[in-house]
Amino acid sequence: MDNRQIVLKTRSQGVPSPTDFELITGEAGRPVEGKMLCKTLYISLDPYLRGKISGRHLSGAIQPGELMLSETVSQVIESQHPDFSEGDIVAAFTGWEEYPIVDGALARKVDPSLGPVSTTLGILGMPGLTAYAGLMRLGEPKAGDTVLVSAATGPVGSMVGQIARLQGCRVVGVAGSEVKCTWAVEQAGFDACINYKTQDVREALKQACPDGIDVYFDNVGGDLLQAAMEQLAIGARVVLCGLMAQYNSDDMPPGPNPAWTIKARATVRGMVVYDHEDARGEFEKAVSGWIRDGQIQYLEDSADGIENAPEHFCRLMRGENVGKAMVAL
Amino acid sequence: MDNRQIVLKTRSQGVPSPTDFELITGEAGRPVEGKMLCKTLYISLDPYLRGKISGRHLSGAIQPGELMLSETVSQVIESQHPDFSEGDIVAAFTGWEEYPIVDGALARKVDPSLGPVSTTLGILGMPGLTAYAGLMRLGEPKAGDTVLVSAATGPVGSMVGQIARLQGCRVVGVAGSEVKCTWAVEQAGFDACINYKTQDVREALKQACPDGIDVYFDNVGGDLLQAAMEQLAIGARVVLCGLMAQYNSDDMPPGPNPAWTIKARATVRGMVVYDHEDARGEFEKAVSGWIRDGQIQYLEDSADGIENAPEHFCRLMRGENVGKAMVAL
Repeated sequence: MDNRQIVLKTRSQGVPSPTDFELITGEAGRPVEGKMLCKTLYISLDPYLRGKISGRHLSGAIQPGELMLSETVSQVIESQHPDFSEGDIVAAFTGWEEYPIVDGALARKVDPSLGPVSTTLGILGMPGLTAYAGLMRLGEPKAGDTVLVSAATGPVGSMVGQIARLQGCRVVGVAGSEVKCTWAVEQAGFDACINYKTQDVREALKQACPDGIDVYFDNVGGDLLQAAMEQLAIGARVVLCGLMAQYNSDDMPPGPNPAWTIKARATVRGMVVYDHEDARGEFEKAVSGWIRDGQIQYLEDSADGIENAPEHFCRLMRGENVGKAMVAL
Repeated sequence: MDNRQIVLKTRSQGVPSPTDFELITGEAGRPVEGKMLCKTLYISLDPYLRGKISGRHLSGAIQPGELMLSETVSQVIESQHPDFSEGDIVAAFTGWEEYPIVDGALARKVDPSLGPVSTTLGILGMPGLTAYAGLMRLGEPKAGDTVLVSAATGPVGSMVGQIARLQGCRVVGVAGSEVKCTWAVEQAGFDACINYKTQDVREALKQACPDGIDVYFDNVGGDLLQAAMEQLAIGARVVLCGLMAQYNSDDMPPGPNPAWTIKARATVRGMVVYDHEDARGEFEKAVSGWIRDGQIQYLEDSADGIENAPEHFCRLMRGENVGKAMVAL
């Protein structure tokens, strides 16, 4: 059986290009004891992959010639693992390929009753857990707080904003288009959303957060982090979660002067989702309930076919996706 | 009775110069109801005064022509406040003058049994409380942690290091001369002290903190903060307390990239001592006990006479003081 795969051809310089990747066709493998042959249903595309391409992500590098790695949702075709049967839906860290061999010890069975299985890569998966644990554990939102979140329609940002809203916070988003801002306010129930491409961000932050920012959940770094630090309320919490502003660069630009943290007596914390696996049970229970009750909206930005994975990933890294980027096979 | 005072003549540019100040002689006042006439014994000189001269400290500005403000220890000569009597020793926020009129409502009686009264400005005063509350509340040291502290022989840094040592931590200091480093290790019991003027700081940090830095108590900002952020252990706490590297500048240089905080899953907190007045009782009890038991060493760098206050302050701002800078009258 043919197994089409996307491999990294060359390390991207700056914003990735589809020519940095290559489609190759091989033969699907056969599962040995403890493994399964699966058919990929959805491939997650995430900004941290850009760091793996550059070799500077803490989960390790992808070398030229190697399969592009990603979390996926797939269906078991043939199982040599006692806990999984043909037809089961599993989430695992596999890659951009049609027929992965999945190690049963590293796979999670997906419960389709929690929500559509594609949400295992978004709202009910790693981005959702990032948002939930990052906001609830590190952001410590209190009712009445003003919560600012960047990349507000992305899978992390949109969840952060909506979970904050459900905690009784006033929620302000920042995003890069009118379509995104409109979705945040009208669909996701944000109180305001600033378009950083067309608005004066400092002025807009003053208007949207007149009493300062109590929680800033940062998915981007760069100028927006600087602008937010300047308008923190006393006792603010800043969750540093993503660095979209610098993923496409090999440079490490400087950050905000420490005086802003001192002035606000702020607490600034670094968020890595791998540290919060112990929150997954509580998170799945809360979010599946919110999905069932219609209290959480989510956006998926899906491309069809493995051959379109490279361009769809490049679109994500250009900030053109609206919602969780994935590939449906 | 003559009352000699030092007033600000002109806002300092860069490192302050004695010519930025002026000695004037006026007439000592008489206390009205609720006030006291006092004789100044010790004037505290502190880096934050540089920010007041520039008009950018959160406690307010000192304008040219105005009295230089400082915390002082003085003795009551004439009291019109029921809680204070002639001869009492009081700590208050007065200024660089010989005979202040002190508001009884804003003065604290000094208990000479806690330690020498000059320590009310150092180890038992604002710098001591800064060190104690900053380390214990924000740094959260655990036995076995590696604690790094900059300005290691200053009144804050030397206390941070010694309190950390008393908590069972391994303590590494950074200071700007051999004399300072020798004092930190031989007198204050630090495990190591790096001379940032003669050593390669990154290399020296690697050697002194082979398992990374668990707590960095930062009194300086600048390059040293950057170097420390690069070598944080996972779960590190960073207490941002002082910015000696930038007090003499009107610029706000950038700080470390947020990636360092994320990589270490660090918690970075801004420390302002005014927020920790509620820790004073616990702090005085702990520190006076340590002084009594000879477990804490401290250094005072004292000049004699009000006329020497400007040059002594400039010396502090050039980093030439060794220990708590003060003026004895």
